[in-house]
Amino acid sequence: MDTQVLPVAWKDLIQNQRWEELRGRLATTHSSDIAELMVQLPPKEEAILFRLLSRDQAAQVFSYLPGDRQEELIRSLSSDEMKSLLDHMPPDDRTQLLGEMPPAVTRQLLQILSPAELKDARQLLGYPEHSVGRYMTPDYVAIGPEMTASEALEHIRKVGRGKETLDVVYILDESGKLLEDVRLGSLVLADPRTMVTAIADPPLVSLVASDDRERALEQFEKYDRVALPVSDALGNMLGIVTVDDILDIAESEATEDIQKLGGSEALDAPYMQVGLLSMIRKRGGWLSALFLGEMLTATAMSFFEGEIARAVVLALFVPLIISSGGNSGSQASSLIIRALALRELKLRDWFRVFGREFVSGLALGFMLGVIGFFRIIIWQHFHLTNYGEHYLLLAFTVWASLIGVVMFGTLAGSMLPFILRRLGFDPAASSAPFVATLVDVTGLCIYFLVALLILRGTLL
Amino acid sequence: MDTQVLPVAWKDLIQNQRWEELRGRLATTHSSDIAELMVQLPPKEEAILFRLLSRDQAAQVFSYLPGDRQEELIRSLSSDEMKSLLDHMPPDDRTQLLGEMPPAVTRQLLQILSPAELKDARQLLGYPEHSVGRYMTPDYVAIGPEMTASEALEHIRKVGRGKETLDVVYILDESGKLLEDVRLGSLVLADPRTMVTAIADPPLVSLVASDDRERALEQFEKYDRVALPVSDALGNMLGIVTVDDILDIAESEATEDIQKLGGSEALDAPYMQVGLLSMIRKRGGWLSALFLGEMLTATAMSFFEGEIARAVVLALFVPLIISSGGNSGSQASSLIIRALALRELKLRDWFRVFGREFVSGLALGFMLGVIGFFRIIIWQHFHLTNYGEHYLLLAFTVWASLIGVVMFGTLAGSMLPFILRRLGFDPAASSAPFVATLVDVTGLCIYFLVALLILRGTLL
Repeated sequence: MDTQVLPVAWKDLIQNQRWEELRGRLATTHSSDIAELMVQLPPKEEAILFRLLSRDQAAQVFSYLPGDRQEELIRSLSSDEMKSLLDHMPPDDRTQLLGEMPPAVTRQLLQILSPAELKDARQLLGYPEHSVGRYMTPDYVAIGPEMTASEALEHIRKVGRGKETLDVVYILDESGKLLEDVRLGSLVLADPRTMVTAIADPPLVSLVASDDRERALEQFEKYDRVALPVSDALGNMLGIVTVDDILDIAESEATEDIQKLGGSEALDAPYMQVGLLSMIRKRGGWLSALFLGEMLTATAMSFFEGEIARAVVLALFVPLIISSGGNSGSQASSLIIRALALRELKLRDWFRVFGREFVSGLALGFMLGVIGFFRIIIWQHFHLTNYGEHYLLLAFTVWASLIGVVMFGTLAGSMLPFILRRLGFDPAASSAPFVATLVDVTGLCIYFLVALLILRGTLL
Repeated sequence: MDTQVLPVAWKDLIQNQRWEELRGRLATTHSSDIAELMVQLPPKEEAILFRLLSRDQAAQVFSYLPGDRQEELIRSLSSDEMKSLLDHMPPDDRTQLLGEMPPAVTRQLLQILSPAELKDARQLLGYPEHSVGRYMTPDYVAIGPEMTASEALEHIRKVGRGKETLDVVYILDESGKLLEDVRLGSLVLADPRTMVTAIADPPLVSLVASDDRERALEQFEKYDRVALPVSDALGNMLGIVTVDDILDIAESEATEDIQKLGGSEALDAPYMQVGLLSMIRKRGGWLSALFLGEMLTATAMSFFEGEIARAVVLALFVPLIISSGGNSGSQASSLIIRALALRELKLRDWFRVFGREFVSGLALGFMLGVIGFFRIIIWQHFHLTNYGEHYLLLAFTVWASLIGVVMFGTLAGSMLPFILRRLGFDPAASSAPFVATLVDVTGLCIYFLVALLILRGTLL
């Protein structure tokens, strides 16, 4: 279905007030597509369309809307409409909603919830942001260890309607402790008289509500599940986390890393939905910090002002040399940050990485050095630029500096993520610009010191 | 379970040849954990352990092993062992395996497959890399549109054993055309006499085998499914893709983007598994290309050699100014690349982004410019550096250049991903180092032109 073409046809139906036809088409359209459509409609038409949806569908469509649209819609709904909406939302989406609205709206929403729903929402909201507790739903089916397969299926038929998923059900003891999980498919396939405990496929994989969401992601990836049970520290079952939330988590974790890697704070919202001011603030902070760090280059350069005055030709290669260090540093840090995030590398691997990067840095530096060397020789030879009588020494200076600068860049870029992780920070904070800044200052010093060594007595 | 502590206990059991005890422990350990353990064992012990596994478990453990370990193990297995292994692997894992091995090994493997398996594997292998066809498994349950819920459950009981998932089953017509999908949970909940077609929850969401895997990811995210059906262009059902593969795809897409963003080719394998030579090649290519681009800075600088000779003080701020442009460019490009990858932004949004980035760039440039301005004033005032009598004009030069350079960096960084996508390239190729290189050359020109404008008649 091409959503680019839809709005016109729908608008037509809305403007001509053909409600019955609209209702019919809505009933056979996926909630996710309706949400996508509504975002493109003006608020008034959006509200009309929303009121044509069945209650269940309305709750689903609402879950798919972006945060600002949800807020807008909430303000336009009556208390009764709002109540019906909340009643029909899955508990985890409801929690997400309450966690994201401005406090005043949240208070208003909480007043409308029934005591039982309030308990759910409060319970889910009690967990810190990015913890598994925030993503769980208490909407699962529990069965007893004394049941047979056919009893379990009977029980599921009784209580299963409206649960978020039936793909996996959970065996709890009388006190509510989680014993095993059983796939619905296994229950269906099993001999009806088999005990459910014999159908379960151990070992049990479960999460604790206070776990970080990254651990949830790790477990889902490792064990290929569609839902995982969540318990408290004592093993009492609290809820489940489903794989659709995990997919969202995987995306946001990667987004955060990419944004940090680019040298800005994580935006925490889609690009277009971040206000311009808040965008400038999130980017300006890091940019200013980097700028302050980069000021050291001016200081470093002023140390060598005398050398530059004597041999202006040295200044020509400053950008080339420091940027090569920055580029090799960016490469190394982005590779290592991702490998750490995917747990391909652990902290204790730092030394092996150091060895690999040392060799890589040497090889890459040598390679760039050779290109730089011949650049000077060739330009001089063909009179494209005149680097003076000592051009050969200058070429050697550039060659040797590049080896040093690229190797330092590679090592700094690869070790910094390890150091940050060791200190308890996010490795992704060792962004490309951060590494580049670090390497720029050092690169300048390496370059001018090599120059002093090679050119003393000739150019310097 | 702490896998760091395991190996010692397991090694003990292996060295003391306590096979029965080992077999017992293996039977209650998750295949994923066994694979993790095996990777840490020397090849001989790995092979022993592998032979203690039941056939089903062996196939599962094998699926979890990294590519190089799989290859090693295959070489050590007899034809019969290999055949049993392949027999027990899910078809999609088998395909993945065949696609990844060196051609000689693949041929050897294909010879061992039974004609039916060979058909499966060949069929899956016929699809291009990164297409949905590569990830699908023909291991699903099909039911007829004329069945009732209880007939469907009966059918599932007959044919469901060993299928990759039973969570969703598929209604096909007699010719094999995909009509609807039905969740097993809905079948269980429904009145046994209901027709399956009445239980299906339209609209049907499905993939085409030739679709790019990114589309699969998009559909899974949008519709919150655990499995999606795959059909050919004519609507004939070919197989299903399950969410565990999609989670892997989401991770590898993000990894590729992060690695490209850091300015190297995508590694296509975990960091430690990439050979040193191939690592250097993958990084050296881009690094050399960037170096060649960066050489233009030396050319640009040589245009202004005269100005530098007259006012060496100008050279001091070159690294500071060009790196500010590079940093703001990296920020912008990483934000935009991610937003494009997540489809938060579409090509047609480029102009709105241009507007936002113009304002952001102006604001950020102004901010950095002010910091730079006061840096010069303060250093001069406290005699930390002597910038000469025209220090105020120099400060203005730095301030104005920074506005220009940061704004150019921001605009180049944000527009480049759009341009690349428009031209059919991957936006992630507009890496931080690439943008930095582009901005360095332009930044130099901006800086020296501003200097000529402001300092003519005084310093210049």
